[in-house]
Amino acid sequence: MTAEAAADETAEAPDAYEALLDRVRRWNTVGSAAGVLGWDQQVMMPEGGTPARSKQLSTLSSIRHDMVTDDETGALLTELADADLTDEQAAVVREIRRDYERADAVPVELVEEISETSSEALQAWEAAKADDDFEAFAPHLEKHVELQREYAEHIDPDRDPYEVLFEEFEPCLSMERTEEILAELRETLVPMIDAIRESDADLAVDTFEGTFPEDDQEALARDALELVGYDFDRGRLDVSSHPFTAGNQFDCRVTTRFDESDPLGAVGSTIHEFGHAQYNLGLPQEQFGTPLGESRDLSVHESQSRLWENHVGRSRAFWERFLPVFQEHFPQTDDATVEDAYQAFNQVHEDNLIRVEADELTYHLHIVVRFEIERDLVRGDLAVEDVPEVWNDKYEQYLGIRPETDSEGCLQDIHWSHGNFGYFPTYSLGSVMAAQLFDAAESEIDDLDAKIAAGDFDDLQAWLNENVHEHGARYETNELVERATGEPFSADAFTDYVESKYGELYDL
Amino acid sequence: MTAEAAADETAEAPDAYEALLDRVRRWNTVGSAAGVLGWDQQVMMPEGGTPARSKQLSTLSSIRHDMVTDDETGALLTELADADLTDEQAAVVREIRRDYERADAVPVELVEEISETSSEALQAWEAAKADDDFEAFAPHLEKHVELQREYAEHIDPDRDPYEVLFEEFEPCLSMERTEEILAELRETLVPMIDAIRESDADLAVDTFEGTFPEDDQEALARDALELVGYDFDRGRLDVSSHPFTAGNQFDCRVTTRFDESDPLGAVGSTIHEFGHAQYNLGLPQEQFGTPLGESRDLSVHESQSRLWENHVGRSRAFWERFLPVFQEHFPQTDDATVEDAYQAFNQVHEDNLIRVEADELTYHLHIVVRFEIERDLVRGDLAVEDVPEVWNDKYEQYLGIRPETDSEGCLQDIHWSHGNFGYFPTYSLGSVMAAQLFDAAESEIDDLDAKIAAGDFDDLQAWLNENVHEHGARYETNELVERATGEPFSADAFTDYVESKYGELYDL
Repeated sequence: MTAEAAADETAEAPDAYEALLDRVRRWNTVGSAAGVLGWDQQVMMPEGGTPARSKQLSTLSSIRHDMVTDDETGALLTELADADLTDEQAAVVREIRRDYERADAVPVELVEEISETSSEALQAWEAAKADDDFEAFAPHLEKHVELQREYAEHIDPDRDPYEVLFEEFEPCLSMERTEEILAELRETLVPMIDAIRESDADLAVDTFEGTFPEDDQEALARDALELVGYDFDRGRLDVSSHPFTAGNQFDCRVTTRFDESDPLGAVGSTIHEFGHAQYNLGLPQEQFGTPLGESRDLSVHESQSRLWENHVGRSRAFWERFLPVFQEHFPQTDDATVEDAYQAFNQVHEDNLIRVEADELTYHLHIVVRFEIERDLVRGDLAVEDVPEVWNDKYEQYLGIRPETDSEGCLQDIHWSHGNFGYFPTYSLGSVMAAQLFDAAESEIDDLDAKIAAGDFDDLQAWLNENVHEHGARYETNELVERATGEPFSADAFTDYVESKYGELYDL
Repeated sequence: MTAEAAADETAEAPDAYEALLDRVRRWNTVGSAAGVLGWDQQVMMPEGGTPARSKQLSTLSSIRHDMVTDDETGALLTELADADLTDEQAAVVREIRRDYERADAVPVELVEEISETSSEALQAWEAAKADDDFEAFAPHLEKHVELQREYAEHIDPDRDPYEVLFEEFEPCLSMERTEEILAELRETLVPMIDAIRESDADLAVDTFEGTFPEDDQEALARDALELVGYDFDRGRLDVSSHPFTAGNQFDCRVTTRFDESDPLGAVGSTIHEFGHAQYNLGLPQEQFGTPLGESRDLSVHESQSRLWENHVGRSRAFWERFLPVFQEHFPQTDDATVEDAYQAFNQVHEDNLIRVEADELTYHLHIVVRFEIERDLVRGDLAVEDVPEVWNDKYEQYLGIRPETDSEGCLQDIHWSHGNFGYFPTYSLGSVMAAQLFDAAESEIDDLDAKIAAGDFDDLQAWLNENVHEHGARYETNELVERATGEPFSADAFTDYVESKYGELYDL
């Protein structure tokens, strides 16, 4: 090859880069269209629409898969492997390459079989949960474990299959680090919760007992969103059976649900989803459809929701501003003080068996149980038939409670019926990351506490935008956290946070 | 070729047919996914979502176009051209071939240019309508006319371009027949409306004057839908600025709008959209995505909405059943009789300038004006700059009224800003077809009038299912009408219907 030809090839690299960007924009746009269909399915669709919706979603998914794994994608990635790229371009190519390599490694027949297994498993799980009949679900769980092991083997036959599956949800954190963090949570929290159980502290938990009509709770949720700064011109609030967030930097919608006996639950869940929505709404608009306009993975996403839910929503400062709003909607709580609200919203439910109803301490032990079980299932160290007993033993060991039924035990969550193994840890990683990010924001923003108490969230929002949202998937998780906080990702900030907060609350 | 080889080729035809069906199912499923995004855009989407939604819709549209015009589609159609097919298979191939040939004939650049022109024209039209400034819209209209002529020329350079464009919306009725029918409507209706203007008849039009709150109107609209048999498990009722219907045989949703001074408007529009929805919901579910599971074209679709709106909703029989429901929601009308409601709902608004507010008589003269103008524009017989004057002259000539502004004249409708020329006639063709179909249904169903008065719509629904809905696009329009009614498609039934109904109402 002459020197001239070599120079030409370098000069041509941007063409391949632009061509690759066009392709990724197209497949991500198909993905975002599918996201709208998914939102509609959970929020608006009449029941009868299921067969058409399944067909629409599977068609879009297969079109997207064909685009990702198209030979041309591979050819462009090969061409770009040695190209002279800027750091940003290299990051974009890194993200596309990861998606391509995973998608290309797995035969489409296996993807379809997993999808079909999920449909059947989902129905079986719903029935099994209703009937408290683990045996009816066991064959589906068995099938999913087998298929997922097969899936992981296609991607990398030489690595721990659980680690490979975990990377589907969090590709940038190592399993080793994740296991360390979860072990640290377990070691910190198990004795704390024991101590809380023994504590004589008398929290003001009765203040928010009573009946709180749904309509008033909805008006309250809207006020909460207005207060924290949700842009209703780029989003919506609706009701769904499981709260979730869906959308992109132009239109990102949240849902919530209401329990007439638990108005704090809706407040927490609404602010949680707001945190997710702010992340998506903060992604750069001009990068829509490219990796720079897509969020980093699940643990970073969860860090944003937990930061708003726990570090803002469950703070004394927030309730100084929010309690009068709450009382406008529910005058029956007019006698409540900020301290009452703070205590009620931070009560530790040490006897609760249900993950989605857990407080911010016990939550992680619910996760650790699931993590240890799904890891052992996928690694072949645990048989499906033994799941209920191991589940119950671990609850007893970590939380000091034992489920009496599998419905409120190992059948409570939907994730395994979707064939999702490796998802659960991202919830805890996100909480841990939230503490570290909030610590950094607090140290960089003057009087953040006073600003929150005054309902002024602009600086916090700007800090999160600048340090997290606006980078899209530019940095891998560790680098993102280290750039934002100046420290490597660790559980230290979280541990300090819970020890200080709950030490004070429960006189530990 | 040996006889054996020939036999083999015949035997292989079904393979190509199945392959073609797989393809069409896939592209129609993409189309139906886009339909959900379109519904969401008009009913649910926050304003800020527009850029992402435009991108999603144009991506899906381009994916669909690529699938339709793929060489493989052409190859399968060529293979099937001489294949031994059943009548039903031949009909399916006929429908796919028509779509393929049109899509394949038009360069994708032109499709994109039309789409971009529409976005700009739409904005310009909105401003021009608000400012009563036709000149600001004229260049966009000019551009659309040129592009549409070019579009038609790509499809068939030897035929009347307006006819070619009309076939986009109604491919199965000839322009000649359409022109005859519209001329017949003009000749029947112009003198009738003159006579009505001169009539001394004193209709009970004051009965439904007053204020009718939106919430109550919405409850009424839901009751109306329940009464006529809308299946809310396969649909929804929402509000949008322009009422429309969107969906398929599993999930077909209607919208309506409310004017607090005009509760009958919402009743009419809701029943109209119900008629559209029943057509889609009546398509065979197992044929989802194939031409046998898609509706026939726009005039047949409009026949279903008009049949329910006019022949059911505007009948005395319907109001015998519905008036008490109406009065439950609006006790202020307790003194109204069925005859009052009938007269109020069938009042001819001979001084109304706005198409969407027209009654079932003057409506068609609004259409004739648009038809004659758009036809002449596309044929090159009328200059864009002359549209306002010609519009006003024709209103004076056919309706005896003259718009004072272009906002309530030639700028009132959105269609031309989308570049849609040839759409308007389908509204009138649908009304005419509705009358012919309803006539046939009446002659085949015992005591249909009494059944309607009793709120029993089962037989009518079954007749429409059997004669229209369940065939999908199996028959072309003329054949569908002739099979359903025993007569060729004509305006006779419509003419008889309006002469008898309005002759009695206005003592003509």
